[in-house]
Amino acid sequence: MGLKSFVEVPRDSHFPLENLPFGVFRPKPSSATVAGDSAPPPPPRPGVAVGDFVLDLSVISAAGLFDGPLLKNSKCFLQPSLNMFLEMGRPAWKEARSTIQKLLSADEPTLRDNASLREKSLLPMIEVQMLLPAVIGDYTDFFSSMHHAKNCGTIFRGPENPIPLNWFHLPIAYHGRASSVVISGTDIIRPRGQGHPMGNSPPYFGPSQKLDFELEMAAIVGPGNELGKPVDVNKAADHIFGLVLMNDWSARDIQAWEYVPLGPFLGKSFGTTISPWIVTLDALEAFVCDAPKQEPQPLSYLAEKKHLNYDIPLEVWIKPAGHEHPSIVTKSNFKHLYWTITQQLAHHTINGCNLRPGDLLGTGTISGSEPESLGCLLELTWNAQRSLTLNGSDRKFLEDGDEVIFTACCKGKDFNVGFGTCTGKVLPALP
Amino acid sequence: MGLKSFVEVPRDSHFPLENLPFGVFRPKPSSATVAGDSAPPPPPRPGVAVGDFVLDLSVISAAGLFDGPLLKNSKCFLQPSLNMFLEMGRPAWKEARSTIQKLLSADEPTLRDNASLREKSLLPMIEVQMLLPAVIGDYTDFFSSMHHAKNCGTIFRGPENPIPLNWFHLPIAYHGRASSVVISGTDIIRPRGQGHPMGNSPPYFGPSQKLDFELEMAAIVGPGNELGKPVDVNKAADHIFGLVLMNDWSARDIQAWEYVPLGPFLGKSFGTTISPWIVTLDALEAFVCDAPKQEPQPLSYLAEKKHLNYDIPLEVWIKPAGHEHPSIVTKSNFKHLYWTITQQLAHHTINGCNLRPGDLLGTGTISGSEPESLGCLLELTWNAQRSLTLNGSDRKFLEDGDEVIFTACCKGKDFNVGFGTCTGKVLPALP
Repeated sequence: MGLKSFVEVPRDSHFPLENLPFGVFRPKPSSATVAGDSAPPPPPRPGVAVGDFVLDLSVISAAGLFDGPLLKNSKCFLQPSLNMFLEMGRPAWKEARSTIQKLLSADEPTLRDNASLREKSLLPMIEVQMLLPAVIGDYTDFFSSMHHAKNCGTIFRGPENPIPLNWFHLPIAYHGRASSVVISGTDIIRPRGQGHPMGNSPPYFGPSQKLDFELEMAAIVGPGNELGKPVDVNKAADHIFGLVLMNDWSARDIQAWEYVPLGPFLGKSFGTTISPWIVTLDALEAFVCDAPKQEPQPLSYLAEKKHLNYDIPLEVWIKPAGHEHPSIVTKSNFKHLYWTITQQLAHHTINGCNLRPGDLLGTGTISGSEPESLGCLLELTWNAQRSLTLNGSDRKFLEDGDEVIFTACCKGKDFNVGFGTCTGKVLPALP
Repeated sequence: MGLKSFVEVPRDSHFPLENLPFGVFRPKPSSATVAGDSAPPPPPRPGVAVGDFVLDLSVISAAGLFDGPLLKNSKCFLQPSLNMFLEMGRPAWKEARSTIQKLLSADEPTLRDNASLREKSLLPMIEVQMLLPAVIGDYTDFFSSMHHAKNCGTIFRGPENPIPLNWFHLPIAYHGRASSVVISGTDIIRPRGQGHPMGNSPPYFGPSQKLDFELEMAAIVGPGNELGKPVDVNKAADHIFGLVLMNDWSARDIQAWEYVPLGPFLGKSFGTTISPWIVTLDALEAFVCDAPKQEPQPLSYLAEKKHLNYDIPLEVWIKPAGHEHPSIVTKSNFKHLYWTITQQLAHHTINGCNLRPGDLLGTGTISGSEPESLGCLLELTWNAQRSLTLNGSDRKFLEDGDEVIFTACCKGKDFNVGFGTCTGKVLPALP
């Protein structure tokens, strides 16, 4: 039996008391407000998901219900982003989790029996608008799935030595674009750009003809580190608040033409979508599993005492324009990652690079070994050499009107810990 | 004859009335404050350099002296960064420039004859601490000097086709790390990391053995653009406030081992230094020159009606530990850039990527065609195949204690428009 809340939590909900993911939201304007013309939108504030409701942490905080030693006098839930809370670190995160878990439990009267406070603090999820959970100072994207690295290498550089020699020695990554990270539900305009010419013909310009999704997850950084002070790999978990789903939209034709020698740029920077609810490492603790054995053994700064992943089943669905239902496209799992998020974070700082609260560390596309578990269309259609069929509709790359939906849910014996969805619809390119 | 100010401006000053570069500073704590133990440092505020003084714009603004239509009721100079002012765009920038130029001129009594306001608003430059002029949301680094691209390609990939085919069709760039951009004068700790193994030997770990500077300049973005809405190349100049000097410190051994296939990461992200004074495009107008002819002709979205550069002579000096004077290492010029900053900005947004006020767009290392005009040690020593001599001290790459000093000054007939310096000293790696 899972934990029991006085808030009704449907059996298949992603958000029981064992989860309690954090996000930032604002109430949707009521219809009365919409009719008026000048009311400013209500300010963003932190919240936690429970069943089909959102608990407004600014209300709980203002009511004085965070009474633990770290949060009692803190203004961290009276902010328009989670950054201040992220900076406080795991002791504060655990205190918040335990306070909220108790407050929402079936046998705790404080909130349960206070109708006015309950009404003010528990909002139906359909009546809120989710926003980016944190101000993202920097966004880094890793490349940590071996199957993805091997498949991409084979497609772009041929089957001989598809994985670069360095890949097994360090978690390869590149700096991404922070400004174009958007929240789930934001439409993505098909980018325009230069494509790869054939042979010696000149490059062409136009809408990307190879628009793709990339199935990723991303870590949200908690406390940062000072410039010049690396984080020990065995303490790296204390710098990670939790995980979100991430779609690293990619224009393969733009990317292929631009990426030598300095890496991906415009092929990625037109948009990156994240899911709104940050599932904490504390909630994921129940789904820990061994990470893949690493051979060759990593250098000592990357050798961790506990080399662990999380068993998080991932799915991608596509809903073409006019279709009533989405079709499933792939099933993968976070546990396939060869480099763990703690190794990624330690590597990121080994040169002294400073991380800041709210930084986003993408895992890279997560592909499994099976053909049905590949994390992007580039791999699934082998660069358009074959097609996927979506309930009668063929796909090599994404078409205008396609809605791409990621979801993830850890299934325990008695409860789920889910991530909700990460969605985005492709709009036509500018004329 | 240049413009005349009541503030004494030495003949060789970088900062006459024709320049008026913008920065952010705080007064250095007075010795009395140092003796106390708990006074918080005075808050950062915007300033303008004139001669050996800094004009405190927060004081000028509070005194009501910005009386033009755009700045009259603005709080843009009562901020700890220039971002709000940057967002206001060229009309506000021109209004500020003309107000300040008038206020400081020899025949204008308002400030000249108000001893108390003069004392409050004009601080000796040696009594202020310069800070980052803007909150940098994203930092992008281009690769726009043909000589640099050719030399690096030859060193890393051999003399056949040293410049990748795409280079002549688009301004290649990568996303850099915003968190580790620091202000001139900040020490740089030698990074540690993995180095490139010889043949099949395993990688080594330790302090970088090939620490380098890169002579760059960077544009500071003014008004941004919405996600999905590219900026026209012929309007790109309206999105650029001005230029700073930039040292893109690089660890060549780390970079060489990590950069395939996703580009530079830890080889660069340990520190990037910028000069504190943003010299506006308005001040640089007097030093416009033709940009290099482009062959092949760029695609239409990069074809600009006015294809212009600025004639900005650049110098790099190194002062080894224990030396009394720095030695000159290279002389280059901003005008060598093949891709202009307006082409860079337009390209950056052509896929819909959004820029924000305060974003930093580095030019890439600026090398000229002559051996004495190369913009980094990698080129100057041809990857350590030869040595530079600094007043008796040999250099292949940077050594601990080396202070690297960039400076730039446009020399007009009657006045200079200079950038001051961009400096940083190399400290030993962590043990």
